Order: sequence, then structure tokens, then C-alpha cells
Amino acid sequence: MEDTLIPYSRLAEFTRKVLGQMGCSAPHAQQAVEALLSADLRGIDSHGIARLSGYVRLWEAGRINPEPDLKVIHETPSTATVDGDSGLGLVVGPFAMERAMEKAAAVGSGWVSVRHSNHFGIAGFHAMKALSRGMIGIAMTNASPLVAPTFSRERLLGTNPIAIAIPAGEEPPFVADFATTTAANGKLEILRRKSLRAPAGWVQDSDGNSSTDPAEPTRGGALLPLGGDREHGSHKGYALGAIVDIFSAVLSGANYGPWAPPFVPYLNLPADPVGLGLGHFFGALRVDGFRPAEAFARHMDQWIRRFRNAEPVDPSLQVLIPGDPEREAEKVRRVSGIPVGPQVMDDLRMLGEKFKIEF
Amino acid sequence: MEDTLIPYSRLAEFTRKVLGQMGCSAPHAQQAVEALLSADLRGIDSHGIARLSGYVRLWEAGRINPEPDLKVIHETPSTATVDGDSGLGLVVGPFAMERAMEKAAAVGSGWVSVRHSNHFGIAGFHAMKALSRGMIGIAMTNASPLVAPTFSRERLLGTNPIAIAIPAGEEPPFVADFATTTAANGKLEILRRKSLRAPAGWVQDSDGNSSTDPAEPTRGGALLPLGGDREHGSHKGYALGAIVDIFSAVLSGANYGPWAPPFVPYLNLPADPVGLGLGHFFGALRVDGFRPAEAFARHMDQWIRRFRNAEPVDPSLQVLIPGDPEREAEKVRRVSGIPVGPQVMDDLRMLGEKFKIEF
Repeated sequence: MEDTLIPYSRLAEFTRKVLGQMGCSAPHAQQAVEALLSADLRGIDSHGIARLSGYVRLWEAGRINPEPDLKVIHETPSTATVDGDSGLGLVVGPFAMERAMEKAAAVGSGWVSVRHSNHFGIAGFHAMKALSRGMIGIAMTNASPLVAPTFSRERLLGTNPIAIAIPAGEEPPFVADFATTTAANGKLEILRRKSLRAPAGWVQDSDGNSSTDPAEPTRGGALLPLGGDREHGSHKGYALGAIVDIFSAVLSGANYGPWAPPFVPYLNLPADPVGLGLGHFFGALRVDGFRPAEAFARHMDQWIRRFRNAEPVDPSLQVLIPGDPEREAEKVRRVSGIPVGPQVMDDLRMLGEKFKIEF
Repeated sequence: MEDTLIPYSRLAEFTRKVLGQMGCSAPHAQQAVEALLSADLRGIDSHGIARLSGYVRLWEAGRINPEPDLKVIHETPSTATVDGDSGLGLVVGPFAMERAMEKAAAVGSGWVSVRHSNHFGIAGFHAMKALSRGMIGIAMTNASPLVAPTFSRERLLGTNPIAIAIPAGEEPPFVADFATTTAANGKLEILRRKSLRAPAGWVQDSDGNSSTDPAEPTRGGALLPLGGDREHGSHKGYALGAIVDIFSAVLSGANYGPWAPPFVPYLNLPADPVGLGLGHFFGALRVDGFRPAEAFARHMDQWIRRFRNAEPVDPSLQVLIPGDPEREAEKVRRVSGIPVGPQVMDDLRMLGEKFKIEF
């Protein structure tokens, strides 16, 4: 079956109404819509409207507070910890990132660790908030424990993404946003849906053997850290995922490692939490905290042009700047709509019926 | 030929004298000895005493100023840029990391970008300086352009390492220190010396084809970003290396990308610099800027224990915490000495003759 192209505005209106029915205030619902659907606009189909029914499932399970009391519970001039009061990460994230940027405006940089939150959508959305203020933005989060560290049979980490957005001058910004695994879980979901195999180095089975079955994580197997195996540097991917986990959850007092509350329906909530909810970490750095903004912008443009114009191995595949593919996707999708697959269409119809909202 | 075991104190004394003959002050020489030989103690043989003749070569080429005037040239309460005045990175690094920690002590975090520096040894040494103050330490640097971004035939990045040191309570600290490539250049040097092949995914030849010859980078080929190829996430390793380059050199005003001044003798100094010297980036974060230090230490201990005790795939290979192998190496080498290979022994004898220092 074909994807259906749906205008952004229609998905936004529907999502806003669903969130309203869950009890979110209008400003919170609007924030959440922007965060969630930025994934669909940027071509990261696994993290956008496809997850709306997942958020509803968490809300039905009593794991999402639609009216959270967001609070800074600890701070210094350049650091803070935010308690998300079990709110949607899509709402907690923007609140925390705003605090990071306020601190950066005041003292050059701001760093905010968050506890008691939930899935926050794509990390890149939060990092990019810094761009319009001439700041570098950083966002990361821990996630459902589906990743086995190097040498481990057990799954102890999430795909723990890192996003870093860096402003330029005339060139579009540099926006890196990536899971610290060989492949994001969303890519495995897509392979499963299409009954395709995964390349070697993406997953292991429940005994820790290499496998090409993208369904392994749904039956005790694991995703692999960036690098894939020890010989190809998986200990580095493991270290990166671990750093995201520690910055997001050990610094804030959230659940870390295998205790991270899962978003995927095939994992259970751990019975012995070590903290509150899921954790995130946000940062904002003023470029003019290091050198005049104009000089930075000029050199950043030169950096981008030199890399984009590098001689390619294959003349048909140009060297990309992180963020290029997502920006191109957004250009197209803002005009022609968001492609929604048949399974997600069914999900949305089901949500429409549940909440008596026309879809 | 066998390695020779040499006591740390003897290597330290010799190195101190060589640096003294180059014109370094006694306190600078002492700082540089500690930074350089920390690599040998920690088992990272490529970055320690083996590089002493390389530093001398740069000094002879007029690229190292033994009496640098180290200066903060731009700052906010939590950020700064340091000009290294062409000094040894081994001396510039500790100066800049100290500024980062001072700022963290005052406002919760400190971030220092550095221009006009040189090779600074292992990143982990600088990051670990934060541990005794109860801070998280971060260090990164750009380096000789030997790495091809995804899809690029050209070498535009260094192996650009990242180190992050995180204090714990009763457990030893978490210390990650890794090149953002599949394998560090030092590992290729070791394979070349032993006439061994490299695993697929480590290097490409000068046309951009996959190769297993560890000598490729010496004749126009390149190291590959962590991930190895696009299917296994090399665009993520490329993004990480790029972020290190931008934080170290575009923020500070150093040379970035292919303009980074090379340390390896088989690359020429670019004729058209875009900045001053090599760049580094340092950070310090107070854990008590986020939550009480005691609570952090307790949970960090629990994190470390849970991961170290994970069920392994192979019972003979325990899951490691980043920093474990290096700490074990240091324990052994402090007692039994540093193993020095025949080629490095020749180098040191040659330096001894050049400077009339007994070795």
C-alpha cells in the first residue's frame, strides 16, 4: 500500500486536538505539536506522527502528566536541573532548553539536566532552538534500554541520541542529530515493517550472536553501539551512549541504564526505579563567548563550503554537511505534505475514533 | 626485537632535559613531561615518549615556541578563548583546562577554546584534571588531516579525539578517551611497524576504495570515521570529528579541517592558513551544579557496578567501564616500567646524542 500525503497543517490540527483531549493546555499542546511534527518535516518518520499513539498509550498507563508543574530544582549561574513532573518530553524539553539559553545569554553558556520526563521527539528540534539566538545548541536524551554495550549480552542503554546545531553566516546551519548506535531503532522498525534484513553489525540476538534479523530487539536481542563490534570501535559508541545516559540521568536524578522507562510497548517498566522518569541534557553556548560572532560566521561558512565541495569518491554522491538531507526533506514536505504509511493511518483513525476527532 | 622496560622516572628525567634544551622553563618542562608520559603510563604507546622526537622535529622547524606567552584573549563568566602563542600543546592544554576549572568553580561550568597550539598528547590527561575537584572534565583537539568524511576522497579531518572524565564515589572514575575514527592513527602505526594488515573499515586508498593496507594514509589514502562506511554509520563518526574540529578551531580562530597543521612528517604545512596553529577545546562541569555531590557519587557508583556486572556474551570477556584498561596498564607500568620498542629506543639515543644528554 502507498503512503498518503497529508498537509502539515492537517496533522498539526489533529495532533493538537488529541493532546487537548489528553488534558494538555493550548500552549503546551502547541509546543508539543511543533516538537513532534518537526520529525515528520525533517524526514525522520519514525519519531513524528507515527509515535502519537505511543504517547497516548503512555498517558493511558498513567505515565504522562498532561498538566506538569515544570520546575528548576537546583542551579548555578551556568547550570540547572529541571524536574519535568512526568510531563511530555515534547513540553519539558523546550522549557529546559529555554533555561539553558537564558543562562547562556547571561554568562556565556547554559547546561540543563532534566529528570522526570518522557520521550522528547527528535533531539535536533531542541538543539536547533539555539540557532536564532546565535548560539550553539546541544540536546541529548536517554531512552528505552535496547542497546548492548561491547561484550554485553544484556541491554543496558538506549539509542541515546546526540544533537548539535551550529549557526553559520550565509550558509545554512550545521545540524548533527544521530543515535549513538550503528542504526537508529526507527530504521529497524522500517525494515521490520517491510520484512527486510538488517546489515551485519546493527543487531545481536538474545545470546549476543551477530544477526541480520531486524526483529531481534523485540525478543531479547539488542541494537549495537556505533562501531558495531570491538574491532570497528563499538567501545566508542558504547562510551558515547554511556555519556548521554550519565549526563541525562545520573546528573539529574532520572532513571539510567536498564532502569530507563521504556517507550516501546514490548519492554516492561522496571519495578525498582533508581530515579524519576526519563532524563535529558541540554546545552547552549554563545559563539560570541569565544570570538566576535561575525568572525565565527565567516569561518563557519568557509568550513561548510570546503567540506561540501570536497572531491567525492563517487561523483554522483556529494559530500554532505550534517543537516543537509533533513533540510531538503523539509523544503519538499512543507509544500507537498507528509507521507504517512498505511499502519500509521490506521493508528490515527483509531485515535480519531477514541477521542471523537475527525481525521 | 624485544621491548625494553624503562622506569617512568628515567623517561621523565630524560624528557625533562630534552625539553630544557629546547628552551622550556623548568615548570613548563615538568608540565609537559606529565602530560606526555601519562600516555605511556596508560598504555597508549603511540602518544607518549614515542612522539618526543616528533616534538623536537617541530621545534627545529620553528613551529614550537618554547617560551610561549599564554593568554586569555576573549571571555565571559563561563567561556574563554586562549591563545597558545605556538607553545607545546602539552603546556597550553593544562593552562586552558585550569581556566575552564576556575570558571566552573565560579559559575558551575567553564568552556575554553584554544588557538595557536600544537599536539597536546592524550586528551584523557587533560579531561582527568577535573576529577580531583569533583568536576566532569572534557577535552578534545583537532589534528593532522588524515580522515576522509563519508563520500569524500579527500582527507579533511584529523582523528579528532574526545575525552570525558566523570568522577564517581567509591568506584574509580569513568574515563572515555577515543579518536572519532574507527581506529586511532597510532594503531595503524603499530600495524605498519609489524607489517600486519588492517581490518576492513579502517582505511581507504587514495581513490577512496576500501583497503586493508595500514600504510594508505602515508600515500594519499585516508582513515575512516567511526562507523567505517555509510551503512554502518560513518556519517555519525564524521559528524563527531567535525564537531571536535569546529569547537576546537572555528570557535577559537585556529586552523580547521584540511588546514590543521600536521604532526605527521609525511604531510606538508598548508601554505594558506585560515587561522593560528592547532585548536583544542576544554570543558569543566561541576556535578554539584546539578545535584548534591554525594547523591551523584552514589548513583554513579551504582551505574558503574551495574554495567561492570552485566552478563557477558563470552564469560572470559567482562563488560568494561571506559578507563578500566588504561587504569590497569598504569598500575602495572608504574611498578615494572614502560615498554619501549627498538625503533623508539633508537630515536631516544639519537635525541641523547643531539642534545648531549645521557640516555
